Amino acid sequence: MTTGVWLIGARGSVAVTCMVGATALRAGLAEPLGCVTELPELASAAVPGLAELAFGGHDISDLPLEKKVEDLVAAGVLPARPAAAVADKLAALERELRPAPVAATQLEVARLVAQDIDDFRRRRGLERVVVVNVSSTEPVPAADPAFENLATLEEALAERTVLPPSSLYAYAAFLAGCSYVDFTPSTGARLPALRELAGRAGLPYAGHDGKTGETLVKSVLAPMFAMRNLRVRTWSGTNLLGGGDGANLADPAANAAKAGSKQRVLAETLGYQPQGSSHIEYVDDIGDFKTAWDLITFSGFLGTRMKMEFSWHGCDSALAAPLVLDLARLTAAAQAAGRSGPLTELAFFFKDPIGDVPHDLAGQWAALVAFVRGLDEPA
Amino acid sequence: MTTGVWLIGARGSVAVTCMVGATALRAGLAEPLGCVTELPELASAAVPGLAELAFGGHDISDLPLEKKVEDLVAAGVLPARPAAAVADKLAALERELRPAPVAATQLEVARLVAQDIDDFRRRRGLERVVVVNVSSTEPVPAADPAFENLATLEEALAERTVLPPSSLYAYAAFLAGCSYVDFTPSTGARLPALRELAGRAGLPYAGHDGKTGETLVKSVLAPMFAMRNLRVRTWSGTNLLGGGDGANLADPAANAAKAGSKQRVLAETLGYQPQGSSHIEYVDDIGDFKTAWDLITFSGFLGTRMKMEFSWHGCDSALAAPLVLDLARLTAAAQAAGRSGPLTELAFFFKDPIGDVPHDLAGQWAALVAFVRGLDEPA
Amino acid sequence: MTTGVWLIGARGSVAVTCMVGATALRAGLAEPLGCVTELPELASAAVPGLAELAFGGHDISDLPLEKKVEDLVAAGVLPARPAAAVADKLAALERELRPAPVAATQLEVARLVAQDIDDFRRRRGLERVVVVNVSSTEPVPAADPAFENLATLEEALAERTVLPPSSLYAYAAFLAGCSYVDFTPSTGARLPALRELAGRAGLPYAGHDGKTGETLVKSVLAPMFAMRNLRVRTWSGTNLLGGGDGANLADPAANAAKAGSKQRVLAETLGYQPQGSSHIEYVDDIGDFKTAWDLITFSGFLGTRMKMEFSWHGCDSALAAPLVLDLARLTAAAQAAGRSGPLTELAFFFKDPIGDVPHDLAGQWAALVAFVRGLDEPA
Amino acid sequence: MTTGVWLIGARGSVAVTCMVGATALRAGLAEPLGCVTELPELASAAVPGLAELAFGGHDISDLPLEKKVEDLVAAGVLPARPAAAVADKLAALERELRPAPVAATQLEVARLVAQDIDDFRRRRGLERVVVVNVSSTEPVPAADPAFENLATLEEALAERTVLPPSSLYAYAAFLAGCSYVDFTPSTGARLPALRELAGRAGLPYAGHDGKTGETLVKSVLAPMFAMRNLRVRTWSGTNLLGGGDGANLADPAANAAKAGSKQRVLAETLGYQPQGSSHIEYVDDIGDFKTAWDLITFSGFLGTRMKMEFSWHGCDSALAAPLVLDLARLTAAAQAAGRSGPLTELAFFFKDPIGDVPHDLAGQWAALVAFVRGLDEPA
Repeated sequence: MTTGVWLIGARGSVAVTCMVGATALRAGLAEPLGCVTELPELASAAVPGLAELAFGGHDISDLPLEKKVEDLVAAGVLPARPAAAVADKLAALERELRPAPVAATQLEVARLVAQDIDDFRRRRGLERVVVVNVSSTEPVPAADPAFENLATLEEALAERTVLPPSSLYAYAAFLAGCSYVDFTPSTGARLPALRELAGRAGLPYAGHDGKTGETLVKSVLAPMFAMRNLRVRTWSGTNLLGGGDGANLADPAANAAKAGSKQRVLAETLGYQPQGSSHIEYVDDIGDFKTAWDLITFSGFLGTRMKMEFSWHGCDSALAAPLVLDLARLTAAAQAAGRSGPLTELAFFFKDPIGDVPHDLAGQWAALVAFVRGLDEPA
Repeated sequence: MTTGVWLIGARGSVAVTCMVGATALRAGLAEPLGCVTELPELASAAVPGLAELAFGGHDISDLPLEKKVEDLVAAGVLPARPAAAVADKLAALERELRPAPVAATQLEVARLVAQDIDDFRRRRGLERVVVVNVSSTEPVPAADPAFENLATLEEALAERTVLPPSSLYAYAAFLAGCSYVDFTPSTGARLPALRELAGRAGLPYAGHDGKTGETLVKSVLAPMFAMRNLRVRTWSGTNLLGGGDGANLADPAANAAKAGSKQRVLAETLGYQPQGSSHIEYVDDIGDFKTAWDLITFSGFLGTRMKMEFSWHGCDSALAAPLVLDLARLTAAAQAAGRSGPLTELAFFFKDPIGDVPHDLAGQWAALVAFVRGLDEPA
Repeated sequence: MTTGVWLIGARGSVAVTCMVGATALRAGLAEPLGCVTELPELASAAVPGLAELAFGGHDISDLPLEKKVEDLVAAGVLPARPAAAVADKLAALERELRPAPVAATQLEVARLVAQDIDDFRRRRGLERVVVVNVSSTEPVPAADPAFENLATLEEALAERTVLPPSSLYAYAAFLAGCSYVDFTPSTGARLPALRELAGRAGLPYAGHDGKTGETLVKSVLAPMFAMRNLRVRTWSGTNLLGGGDGANLADPAANAAKAGSKQRVLAETLGYQPQGSSHIEYVDDIGDFKTAWDLITFSGFLGTRMKMEFSWHGCDSALAAPLVLDLARLTAAAQAAGRSGPLTELAFFFKDPIGDVPHDLAGQWAALVAFVRGLDEPA
Repeated sequence: MTTGVWLIGARGSVAVTCMVGATALRAGLAEPLGCVTELPELASAAVPGLAELAFGGHDISDLPLEKKVEDLVAAGVLPARPAAAVADKLAALERELRPAPVAATQLEVARLVAQDIDDFRRRRGLERVVVVNVSSTEPVPAADPAFENLATLEEALAERTVLPPSSLYAYAAFLAGCSYVDFTPSTGARLPALRELAGRAGLPYAGHDGKTGETLVKSVLAPMFAMRNLRVRTWSGTNLLGGGDGANLADPAANAAKAGSKQRVLAETLGYQPQGSSHIEYVDDIGDFKTAWDLITFSGFLGTRMKMEFSWHGCDSALAAPLVLDLARLTAAAQAAGRSGPLTELAFFFKDPIGDVPHDLAGQWAALVAFVRGLDEPA
């Protein structure tokens, strides 16, 4: 193995589905469904194979992997057969997980995090490690001058709690010489100070907020209305979800962050913001099988009013996990190719992509294909 | 005015919505919603403007335009305000409509049709005329050797009823030196003998079957599943529609033609044919406001099963009419540019496009934009 | 005419649809669809006919009826034909509408309101008048000791603003010797002091919150799950609506009142409260045509999980207006029969009915039929 | 145990879910969800308890029970835990299953069937046995004079193949002195000759076609529209289902039988037949988890048009199995109480109930409660 995938939130549903799934795929127990980098259009010698990936990570929870796998099987997220087949591999995975470090200052925490990752890299003899944030969504932090440049930030880190956890881990990742992927709507690397650090260190990063369900559908339907010159009047969505992130998103602050990123695709692809909002409701019983319902009202020729509805019944972890694998592989390839700073070509994977990029899925796909083709070319 | 639009089925809902709507748009009574050629990406000096279009047509019905407009307003297809505002223009439109000619042989009928169109062109001083078939869907005809080459066909036309009406009108259009657009799933110009004739006459044609609702949605959702490497297991659709074409499609033979063309997009964009079919049911009460419901079941990571449903509540005539205007304008521009034979670049508009073309809407859009850009370039 | 219907909110959508509709029905311009008292099972000599009803009312708005009718026709709430046919009757209706009185104290306002109603009764020679609240939903008021008994309330009314408007109008109605119907979720007559007044005056009243859409469906689906011993796990609803009441309900306080009354039917018919809530979102563009979507997840034999969804696309005013007519007629009949206090037998019409009554629609229907049969019997 | 349940189609999904489920419930492994007779309203000493039931049956298939249970667990129809817990009981159940007898004439087959059932009764020391048809749906047979009276039928049975299998088993059940329940839309006991036989033998029977999903919902929604005087214009349904019965129903003849019985509830509860039909499509991939979608368009006050849609995602076997237990228990109780002929009071359980009975679920529930209460009374 050449490439490490270090998961922040490593005992959560997405991370565990990702690790167990990669193990099962490697053993030939299932087709690589959901894995975009396995499509023929993206085949590339520059992208590390599934068999090249080694996993580790941090979590504040200490729930044993074995117990989490059991829960995911009971909930129908992990199919029983592949889960059973890789049961003997769980102990090895478990050995690479670390508790979230605790220390007096955020600077010290960051150094301990970086140390854990560096140990992992050496121990496993990896060429490079990609750190991926798949932990719960955080509230948007209040603005802070320390966010604005690296020197101020580093001073502050030695003195007070300045960064939200997702950003602290991004800082630690760069400190350890790792690229970083933000799969959540949290702040992560989205601060000028961290951008400065990544640039200096020559490290790439990607984000934000994996596009797994309702927004994925929006990113093809909104362009359809635009290409047909149909005026979208209302686009209103309801997301019912349970599970860990569901509970978290019921918190109005986190919800606001998420719901905003879910509507952005509309303004970007339509050129105007239709009425309506995206509403998230936590329903414990629904667990990982999210149901989203969207109502779209639109006007056509001479103003005639029409509408469309869709319901999406998706398993969030099963949709997210293969994308985490894709992102780790593509970001590692970018790092190997010497790329640094934001990887805007990976917009295909995100609800709220970095940079001034296309928001229609087809445009994002074209950018992704070109990016992978570029990796194959001699520098 | 420079460009004629000759409608076969000129007293039907689509044709009347098209003529009344163009009149209203020309008078500035509504925004050109639904008109694709009015989008900035397709702006071109080579494409005739809405104000350049003159309308005429044939129909076997003799229902007065005024009565039809009243019915369409009552049914909510035509908004009352623009319809009232153009009431004084209906008499002029009415004068350009002709009864479907009757004669002893199909050859004679075709000549009378061509004569009517030619009279229209001269009377209105038009540079060219595009014939557009918006009449009711026909059953698929039995194979006939006369379909295979022009000479045999012309012999047969003098002796027996050999062509279905849509093809006879296509023949007449070419005879009259006009380009031809098939907005229905009927046979139209889709016969080797007619292709031969179009080629000889140097005339372009486009088709088949305007993509107005459920198939439009399929053409963006199916690529979404493909780009995400999600395996579509079932795609099953139900279309409830009334109106003239609805009654017609309840006929199993016509239904088969239509339903087949509706599923083609799946095999073409997914690379395999999922289970399920597309079912059409005639419900008189629903009229022109069609409701389509589709259920899609799919598998993701490790085979996890998920599903999606959508309902589309669209007004067929309001969706079709602006596309008829688009197709007439684009086909006229192609003819002016010297194009002949099938216009495969117009696949964007059709359920069952001619040629080996992309079936995903984004790919079709790119082809369309390139086509329009090509018209602007000096030959 | 023998029976007055005095509408609070008389220039709103429900009231105007109600008055125009009753006028059109009386003229034989439409079938009495939506009118429950017109069903054969409820035919009764004791219930005043549609032709017996005279209309009047108060409103804080001064929008002319004619303009409001125009708006309702444009929005598709009132069909154009019956609206046009009764245009010459609007002036007579307009003459019976009064501005909401203004005075120094709430007591004086109440007396002015009662005076207006009494004038109406005398002027039109009516046997009795039913006051119906169809104004916008109010926030739930803070508790006040004056709510608890009539003497305290009347002292307070002379001194300060103590009652929310819906309750002040209920007070005025009883003062004027009229029965009262609360078609909204506002407080209305739901205060011990007002109950005391109604009892003393020997007047009946009914409420609360007309059951027009999503809750109507719940009141038949929830009993279905109960009768089949299926365990409802989640029942989550989204209501998208525009119009006046929509904007009002976007106010979190009013929303809370409404959403609570929408879930009550579940606990009452199931015997437990499933997870999930009922969410109301204001979407101006949707107007009076509300769309509600509900997701229900449930467990059956051996715990197998299943689900059901429904979408309801209803026109709120068209659903409410005939029920207002029904309630006025039935309440007038109850008053004529000497009934006083809460009319629990009218639970069929309400989301949040008064008293310990059945919440399943079938049980409510049986109670309603028995009530009407009882009216026919000699005392 | 006192009561036998003899299942025709004993190796099918419904029968096996029923037997495994009853075993699990008896062992206290799950709550009796889905079992109507376990509701407090239906508690009765006259109805045999779940622990009183002994199972046996015929099937033309010889698939081992163990294998079928495995398949049902894999398909998500049987939850893994209770299935595993009763694994050691499968051998005992297996011993009571018999192959469908083969003989030269239908009369001989019937006698062999009756003999098998009688052996079961004696071997297990049962007071009585209820025969329940849960085999695949048959096409409607052509009319035959032998159907009309018992003497003619018995002559014919000795000579030719006259009865469809479901009716032959009903004949055999009565021959063996057993009551009979038809859970399918097949002919079963619905022939004058068989009615004559049941009458003579003093045996009760019930049917037809278990009401498990879409029709259950119709039986509460249709009365809702009726009670609100809303005119249903269109009611159109699509049923996507796989599994054994799904494949069978794809046969147009069987489909017609089923679809007809699904629409009957509308005419019966509305008093008129709305437009639209109920369409069944076989989709192998969907298996036992049926999805039904219904569109209902209706008119309200002044003819305003509205609509409602619902989707039902139900597991057919999990919905049917507890009803089979209910029907066996109730029919046994009726037989014990001396009832003979059609049990019209069990309409609650059927899509197409026998007799002139209520079709609204609430009315059927009231009849069922009265029936059970009647069983408790001394004769």
